[in-house]
Amino acid sequence: MTIAAPIAKSLQRASWIRQMFEAGARLKQQYGADQVFDFSLGNPILEPPPKVHETLHALLDDPAPGNHRYMPNGGFTAVREYLASELKEEQDLPFVTADVVLCVGAGGGLNVVAKALLEPGDEVVALAPYFVEYGFYVQNHGGVLTVARTQQEDFLPDLEALEAVMTPKTRAIIVNSPNNPTGVVYSQEVLDDLGSWLRTQEQRFGHPIYLIADEPYRKLLFDEVTNGSVLKAHPHSILITSHSKDLGLAGERIGYIALHPEVPDRALWQEALVFTNRILGFVNAPALMQRALPHLRGVQVDIGFYQQLRDQICGLMEDVGISCVRPQGAFYLFPQALEEDDVAFVRRAQEEKILLVPGSGFGWPGCFRLSYCCPSSVIENSREAWLRLVESYC
Amino acid sequence: MTIAAPIAKSLQRASWIRQMFEAGARLKQQYGADQVFDFSLGNPILEPPPKVHETLHALLDDPAPGNHRYMPNGGFTAVREYLASELKEEQDLPFVTADVVLCVGAGGGLNVVAKALLEPGDEVVALAPYFVEYGFYVQNHGGVLTVARTQQEDFLPDLEALEAVMTPKTRAIIVNSPNNPTGVVYSQEVLDDLGSWLRTQEQRFGHPIYLIADEPYRKLLFDEVTNGSVLKAHPHSILITSHSKDLGLAGERIGYIALHPEVPDRALWQEALVFTNRILGFVNAPALMQRALPHLRGVQVDIGFYQQLRDQICGLMEDVGISCVRPQGAFYLFPQALEEDDVAFVRRAQEEKILLVPGSGFGWPGCFRLSYCCPSSVIENSREAWLRLVESYC
Repeated sequence: MTIAAPIAKSLQRASWIRQMFEAGARLKQQYGADQVFDFSLGNPILEPPPKVHETLHALLDDPAPGNHRYMPNGGFTAVREYLASELKEEQDLPFVTADVVLCVGAGGGLNVVAKALLEPGDEVVALAPYFVEYGFYVQNHGGVLTVARTQQEDFLPDLEALEAVMTPKTRAIIVNSPNNPTGVVYSQEVLDDLGSWLRTQEQRFGHPIYLIADEPYRKLLFDEVTNGSVLKAHPHSILITSHSKDLGLAGERIGYIALHPEVPDRALWQEALVFTNRILGFVNAPALMQRALPHLRGVQVDIGFYQQLRDQICGLMEDVGISCVRPQGAFYLFPQALEEDDVAFVRRAQEEKILLVPGSGFGWPGCFRLSYCCPSSVIENSREAWLRLVESYC
Repeated sequence: MTIAAPIAKSLQRASWIRQMFEAGARLKQQYGADQVFDFSLGNPILEPPPKVHETLHALLDDPAPGNHRYMPNGGFTAVREYLASELKEEQDLPFVTADVVLCVGAGGGLNVVAKALLEPGDEVVALAPYFVEYGFYVQNHGGVLTVARTQQEDFLPDLEALEAVMTPKTRAIIVNSPNNPTGVVYSQEVLDDLGSWLRTQEQRFGHPIYLIADEPYRKLLFDEVTNGSVLKAHPHSILITSHSKDLGLAGERIGYIALHPEVPDRALWQEALVFTNRILGFVNAPALMQRALPHLRGVQVDIGFYQQLRDQICGLMEDVGISCVRPQGAFYLFPQALEEDDVAFVRRAQEEKILLVPGSGFGWPGCFRLSYCCPSSVIENSREAWLRLVESYC
């Protein structure tokens, strides 16, 4: 009896992923990092735009006292005001300051919302393939993650599959667009359909069912595509995002939660999010990064850089004969593996020094996730390895 | 059915505290902030030492890439190495890098440890008077907080009271020295006695019982007193601290967890803390502040400033005839209220524009917490108000 048994079990279950990462690390050590084609990590490669450091320098030189002290648990009022007014303009909805709560990245925000919402046994639906952390975030607070598959051909929501997993205990659905692991973007039409369907489900079960949007990639869009808004699609919706990707600040843990102005018991919700942000030990989002946000309106990393990588990797996949849904956002690709057993496929790719993540890790066996958040040279130099890998299946 | 019922209930229970704070805010609005004597907040007043901003500027100018990206969930390896070597020297124990996990403040660290340790129904003992957040931190992860009173005369651990609350489900005891709300410091002797007693309890129950030290105030010591080390007192111990107070960085959420090198299943513990830091959504401690730590060896705010305030407030309390245990650390005082009902006393103090927190909020009715983390002028200017308050009880 040392650590909690469920944690020990989770660590054990995760051991195959760890083994895979360790194998990758060994490859890099053995052959040199530049000889290994690492497509396994979702760690934003672009540095923050110069304006970010300029802003941070200026904030550090601000002689006003109290800048690094505790502020109200929801964040600095001026920063919440700024974000609320930005959202008001962007979403054309009457946000007020208290609808916005600054949080420790989107991962922190999802836990804050789950803690505020869930009672033991309450269910949250994820749409497979999905980010594996959702399972933990829901279980952390006594909830149960249920899973509905998306449409095989385009990874968009499948309302029939969704309807099949709904129960009286379903409290929310999590959507993630642009999507990890598929790179698919949900249009407004897709979300509007989901919203209409949700309202029929709310009538069916007689209580609100929340549409929770996890949108860390919301600014990473290609081909002039628009990311649909959950806030416009369903009045019982909550947006959670971070500046990990658009400002290249993943390690700084800065994000926010925005409550739809029409959520039921709005004042209670506002208060609950501030409270759970506090009692989960986040206390508040990091002060310095909060204060930077109002100075960074419209600032973002060069999205074109990711789009070029997308074009390059899609070209390569086509050349070597691996088919996939062409992503329009984020920095992932989710192609079909060349054998049914995606774990075996990923192991075989490792033999060619290509590091990938099996689709099983996203609740969708048979595919693999390729992160092209890497230098262009990694993609280019991997061509021969991919050809050998594909050939080995012929 | 909107937010979770237990959260709604907590908000309702906390409403009297909120009302009290709102009453304080109204007083400030009505009479001007300088006419209200606010002793209610535990928000460090000292700005970070100049070396902190110098370091942050230099780090921002570092042209190396990747400084703001995700790093391993336990923190930057170089920072963990630095802290492990500092602890090795300070504690004379064989810490290794993996024994240290960077966390989002001590509040974050306590949740990370609780999540790694507790199964449903497991108990953690707090020593009253205690920081109210401990209850949430333990409940968040299915645990139950049990409470043992300290000795009335000096607020030090009472082993008999502790023994009375021990059950086969007790997994840990939380100590907090220097203490919030009493300002009392546990000597090595006190902790050694606690450690010896814990080992008899471990024999009695046949499993490890952890001594968890929450030490955000560990550097805030007066009168050349030394803070005892839990790590030296008990091999099954975990230290959690932050730089909220000693570096004035409360809002930046930077702290760390240190595992005693002799905890059972050390490797599993190391892995578990990194894992729970990840799945709770903290992901990692803020990157920039992590990187600052190795450059701030020995740097701290002017502790003498707090000691002077301690002397000033103790002098004032003596002058007006309110008795209390003289604190030797942190920035709190926990005197006897002038009537049995501490909430009524605090309300009456508000009439004199003195803001305090009732001892009931710390599981110890009959006393009140006074935070002297405020400008010296607030203490000085409050003299007449205190005299009137005391007189009103004569």
